[in-house]
Order: sequence, then C-alpha cells, then structure tokens
Amino acid sequence: VYERGDVEFSRVLAFSDGVFAIAMTLLVVGIEVPDLADKESVGDLADALGDLSPSLISFFISFAVIGRYWLAHHAFVAMLARMDMRLVGMNLVYLAFIAFLPFPTALLGNFFDNPLTIAVYAASVAAVSGMEVVLFRIAYRDKLMARPMTPEVYRWETLMSASPVVLFTLSIPVAFAVGSGWAVFVWFLGMPLGMLTSRWKPEGADDLLM
Amino acid sequence: VYERGDVEFSRVLAFSDGVFAIAMTLLVVGIEVPDLADKESVGDLADALGDLSPSLISFFISFAVIGRYWLAHHAFVAMLARMDMRLVGMNLVYLAFIAFLPFPTALLGNFFDNPLTIAVYAASVAAVSGMEVVLFRIAYRDKLMARPMTPEVYRWETLMSASPVVLFTLSIPVAFAVGSGWAVFVWFLGMPLGMLTSRWKPEGADDLLM
Amino acid sequence: VYERGDVEFSRVLAFSDGVFAIAMTLLVVGIEVPDLADKESVGDLADALGDLSPSLISFFISFAVIGRYWLAHHAFVAMLARMDMRLVGMNLVYLAFIAFLPFPTALLGNFFDNPLTIAVYAASVAAVSGMEVVLFRIAYRDKLMARPMTPEVYRWETLMSASPVVLFTLSIPVAFAVGSGWAVFVWFLGMPLGMLTSRWKPEGADDLLM
Amino acid sequence: VYERGDVEFSRVLAFSDGVFAIAMTLLVVGIEVPDLADKESVGDLADALGDLSPSLISFFISFAVIGRYWLAHHAFVAMLARMDMRLVGMNLVYLAFIAFLPFPTALLGNFFDNPLTIAVYAASVAAVSGMEVVLFRIAYRDKLMARPMTPEVYRWETLMSASPVVLFTLSIPVAFAVGSGWAVFVWFLGMPLGMLTSRWKPEGADDLLM
Repeated sequence: VYERGDVEFSRVLAFSDGVFAIAMTLLVVGIEVPDLADKESVGDLADALGDLSPSLISFFISFAVIGRYWLAHHAFVAMLARMDMRLVGMNLVYLAFIAFLPFPTALLGNFFDNPLTIAVYAASVAAVSGMEVVLFRIAYRDKLMARPMTPEVYRWETLMSASPVVLFTLSIPVAFAVGSGWAVFVWFLGMPLGMLTSRWKPEGADDLLM
Repeated sequence: VYERGDVEFSRVLAFSDGVFAIAMTLLVVGIEVPDLADKESVGDLADALGDLSPSLISFFISFAVIGRYWLAHHAFVAMLARMDMRLVGMNLVYLAFIAFLPFPTALLGNFFDNPLTIAVYAASVAAVSGMEVVLFRIAYRDKLMARPMTPEVYRWETLMSASPVVLFTLSIPVAFAVGSGWAVFVWFLGMPLGMLTSRWKPEGADDLLM
Repeated sequence: VYERGDVEFSRVLAFSDGVFAIAMTLLVVGIEVPDLADKESVGDLADALGDLSPSLISFFISFAVIGRYWLAHHAFVAMLARMDMRLVGMNLVYLAFIAFLPFPTALLGNFFDNPLTIAVYAASVAAVSGMEVVLFRIAYRDKLMARPMTPEVYRWETLMSASPVVLFTLSIPVAFAVGSGWAVFVWFLGMPLGMLTSRWKPEGADDLLM
Repeated sequence: VYERGDVEFSRVLAFSDGVFAIAMTLLVVGIEVPDLADKESVGDLADALGDLSPSLISFFISFAVIGRYWLAHHAFVAMLARMDMRLVGMNLVYLAFIAFLPFPTALLGNFFDNPLTIAVYAASVAAVSGMEVVLFRIAYRDKLMARPMTPEVYRWETLMSASPVVLFTLSIPVAFAVGSGWAVFVWFLGMPLGMLTSRWKPEGADDLLM
C-alpha cells in the first residue's frame, strides 16, 4: 500500500500522465502528410487537405475524448488517500486501453463513413469507461478514499462512470442503421444529459467527470 | 481549486511538460530518411539531404517556436498561486494546439514554397497564442495569481500575448502575395518589436515572453 | 550516491517512467492502419482488421509484459534507500532493452507464425529479466537497500528474477519444434509457477514480481 | 532565477528528462519491420534481420550516446544551486540537438558505409557536446553552482566537455579516408583516453562525464 506523499504514489501518477500525454500527442502521427506531384499548387494542396479533414476532425475529437478521461483520472486520484497493488495493476489495464486509442482514431480518420470503424472506436472508448468503473469500485471496496463515501454517493458516481459505456455501446447500432455522423452525435449527448441529471445528484457527491 | 504545492497542481504541469516534450521530439519523425539505390554514393546522399533541407529547417524553426511557448507557459505558471477547473480545462485546449503542431511542421517541410502551407502553419501558431490570451484572462478574472495585478499591467500583458496572433495572421497574405520566405521573416519580427516596445512596459509587468 | 528524497534520485525515476510510458505507448504505432480501395465496405474492413489480429494481440501481450516489468521496477525501487552511479548506469542498459521492445513486438505482429520471431522476442524479454538480476545484485552488493537482506532472501529473490530468463529461453526451441502458440503458452507459465513456488518463500521476502 | 526546490526548477528537469526519454525511445521507430512474401520462412526472415543489423547496431550505439549525455546532464544539474533564464534558454537549444539525434541515427542505420552519414552523425553529436560546454560556461559565469569552483577545476571540466567535440570532428576525415568502422572506433576512444587523463585531474574536480 502506497500512501499519498510516497515516492511510489507519485510515480504511479507520473507514469499515468506520461501514457496520457503520449497517447494524446501520438494522435497527430495518424495524420498523413499528402504526397503531391506539383508541390507549389495551392489548389492541389487545398484538395489534399480537404481529403484529410476526417483525419483532422478525428484528431481533435480524440484529443477531447482522451483529455476528458485525463480530467476524470485526475479528479479520481484527488480523492485517494492511498493505493494498493490491485488499484495499481488495474490502473495499468486502464492505461492499456488509453494507449490503444490512437489506433481506432487513425481508423476513424481513414474510414469515417464505415460503420465498423465507429463500432471499433466506440467499443475502445467504452472499454476505458468500463475500466473507470472498475477503478472506482476498487477504491471504494478497499477503502482507499480520503473521505468515507455514503452508499448513495457511491451508487451515483458508479452510475455516472457507467453512463458513457451505455452511450458508446448504443452508438454502434446507430452507426450501422443511420450513419457515422449520428453516432458521433450520440457520443456528445453525454454533456447535456450530465447537466440534466445533475439535479438528482446526492449531497456530498463530487463532480467526478467520469 | 488546486493550490500550489498540491499533488494535483504539479500533475497538471507534469502532463503539460509531457505534451510539450513529446510534440517537440515528434517533430523529428517528420523528417523522412531518404531511399537511395546506391547507398554508398556520397554525391547521391548529399543531393538527397539537400532536398531534405526544408524539413531540417522546419524542424529547428518549430523546435524554437514550441520552445518559446514552453518558456511562456513556464513564466505564466510561475505567477500562479492556484488553478481552477476552468484553467485546467482551457489548458487542455491549449495543449491540443501544441500537440497538433508537428503536422503543420511536416507540411512546411514538404511544401515550403506553397503559400497554403504557410497559412496552415501560421493559423495553427496563432491559435496557440490566442489560447495563451484566454489562459491569461482566466488567471486574472478568477484571481489565481500570487500577486494582484494592476489593470495597466494586465492590459500590457494581454497586448504582448495577443501580438503574435496579429503577426502570424498578417504573415498569411504576405505568403500569398510575396512568398514563403518573407512570411517566415514576418514571424521573426516579433523579437525586435518586443525589444522596441519594452520601453513602454508599465512598472510591475513581468517579461512573460508570451 | 543519491539519497532517497534528492532531486537526482527522483530524476532517475522520472526518466525511467518516461521510457516505460513511451515504450508502452509506441507499441500502438506498430499496428498499421489498413489501406482499402472501397473505404465504406464493412466486409472489406472486417477482413483487414481480421488480418491485423496478430498485431492487436501482440500489442496487448507486450503492454502486459512491459507493464509487469514496470511493476517489478517499481517494487524494486521502493526497496532502495539510495542509488550509486553503477546502479544508475546499469538502469540505463536495462532501459535500452525496454525501449527496444516495440521492435520485436512489431515483428511478432507481422510474423507471428515464424519461429524466428518468437526467438527474437523471447531473447529480448530474457535480456530485460537478465538485467533485472544485475540491478538486484548491485543493490545487494553496494548495500543500497533500506532494510538489510538475509542471504536466504537474496538468493530467493535472485531465483525469482532469473526464472523468466529460463522460461523465455526455453520457449525458443518450443517455437521451432512445436509452434508459436505453444511458445506463448510457455511465457505465461510463469504465473501459475509463481503461485506454486510461493509456499517455499523464505520469511522477509517481498513479492517483488521480478 | 529559479532556486533548487522551486516548482520551476524541477519543471525544467522534468521537461529535459522527457525530451531525453522520448529521443531515446523514438530511436526504435527508425528500425523498419521487414516486408516478406513468405512470412513463415525462417531463412527469409533471418536474411531480412541480417540486413537490418546496421539499424540494430545504430539503435544501441545511439542509446549509449544519448544515455551518456543524460548522465552528464544529470551530473551537471546536481552541481547547480539555481538556474537563470539564460541557462534555461540554452538548455532548450541543447535539447533541440538531443531531439534531433534520432534522424542521424536512422541515417546511420540505412547508410552505414556512406562516409557522409558518419559526418552528419558526428557533427550532430559534436553540436550536443559543444552546447554542454556553453551550459557549463553559463553556470560558471552566472555563479549558479552550489559550491564555488577554482579556475583550475573550471578549465579542467571545460577541457573534458570539449574533448568529444574534438574526437567526433576528427572522426569525419577518418570516415572519408579509411572507412565508417574506423570512425566509430574513434568515437569510443573517449573512454580509454578519459581513464588515462584522469591522473591529471585537479583536486576538487568532479567526474562530470561530460
């Protein structure tokens, strides 16, 4: 068990932040520089950049998605007083899915209109949110939180962490039945839904962003 | 709100430094190793490296540009006593544009003489400077600074942060009308201009480099 | 000699964590985005992703392998009270093999059924475990541990660190004689073996995971 | 001026360590995974890996070279009591050359027998050593060291930092006149020379490794 303030506690965070920072910055590698015969033609380059627009949009969507998970990880760790080996191990599994995200992002940039791409991307993101629920559960069960948590608050936070799993899973049939654009719309439904539901938030619940 | 000295305060910095370090080091990936039939010919390799010179120059220009932003971010954070969630969130948007820079840099290395490339690069850098103005505004409005700031100093610093937005935007028509070389010249006008205007600097204003 | 708590002590760890985080995140670069004529065909993309499955499996295997070494490095450093230059230097050699791992992982993803790939991968991982034994030996000989260690415990821990070297070396002839799948099976034999042997663990021995 | 112990002092180190870690780990990206028609042929893969051996050797040479600079940077920073903006700025220039090293390393892996490659590599490394001399000079002139340094010690350390510049520059004509192998031999002459000259080391001089 590592207490807050230990070298080992902060090492886990430094490592996690490293994986987040690299995954977010590696996304740019997925945008391919176009190859043109006439390098000085403005029209040709404009066309080539136009063709790249799904890649560019995917970069910023994925930066926002991973950035939101970083904020959630941040808020989660701020609640911890200590870590046990189970949490450290599961944090690694969580980070594996974070580190994997540049691949579905590159897929999205290249095959945006293919519903299978949306399915792969949504499944990857749902896996990250699912691991968040697992991390939160371990922290609650193993009593790693700085302040004890009422069962109402625990249930509420779990529901909040689990809701992206539902939304992203739901977007998969939407992609196949309606189209990629509508599936992406479902992804961003989380924000207004979060605001709507916040009125039922029990007292003492932090805005975990998870 | 995270106070200076908290684990969470330094985590934001570790993450930001990570994105800066990776974006600056990833720039080198944009330089393609040449492919030669005769691998031992000095002349052929010299020609190939000559063709790469725009890539090499772009690497060092971009390292200088991102390095300057790192210095400015550094000087900005040194003034903060605390961070609120709004600043942390907007810092992420700022970092998204930093992480994006290797792509326009690679464009610049491959299509230096194309004015559209200059436009894309200049717009990307102007976006970073624009986000700096936003970060500075949040720090002032939300009273996150360690020392209170007079309105004169605040106005001066905002002007200094906003001036690269003007310069880089101005370089875009220069690129189309005159040429890429002159546009790059406009980018570096900031340095002598900064020295000239420093005589009007109000008392108490730090040299923020922003 | 750097004492725990020195800037220099934590710099070695920050650097090590950086190499781990980058090596683990770079693994994803080895998964190539497929190139399809018909970008919207679900069937074609499903086939292409099916062909990528060895790459995807290799990503998660390697993330687990490097993650396990990170945990072991973590547990090892938690025992140290100080570092000498010999340990810092050998830690660099250890990190060289960690940083090398994305290459054999990419090989594994592309040539899974080729026994030579298994041999290269297993030899690389065995080299990492071999360096762990070296690091542990230096820490014991140069008295860098916080708590003195009995010779029984030292011998036990060395045996535990050395056992993956044996297993991974053993998997090489298995790959050539039987097949790649069985070789991978041998790699994961370490886990049940570790549980079985833990009953002979001498008193005072930590579960170093090495 | 940032004092040792400030958030800003350690941020410079975190950023520097990040660039070092990424540059060292990116080296592996320069090793291309072979493309074979018969993926299961051991002979074909062995030939392909044989062709890659210069890339593999270049990886380990460059890891050793950058690792040595990291050790030197480490030993240098351990002597500092504070940093001024001049040192922070020049440290960025130093890091630009570190971040550039993966490119000459990839060149070396692809065109080992081409003397021009040796020249590019040696010039890049000589630039890093040259910047080390600059950093050391600033630290001495601006009185940033924790312990005051006698002129004899300062002269000795400068000589030690400058000697790789001489050796690497000297290796360039050797590459053209004799061959790449001998040039690499000259690079590693530094080690025995360092041991030989250490007998003239003045009292109070640290083994800076620079």
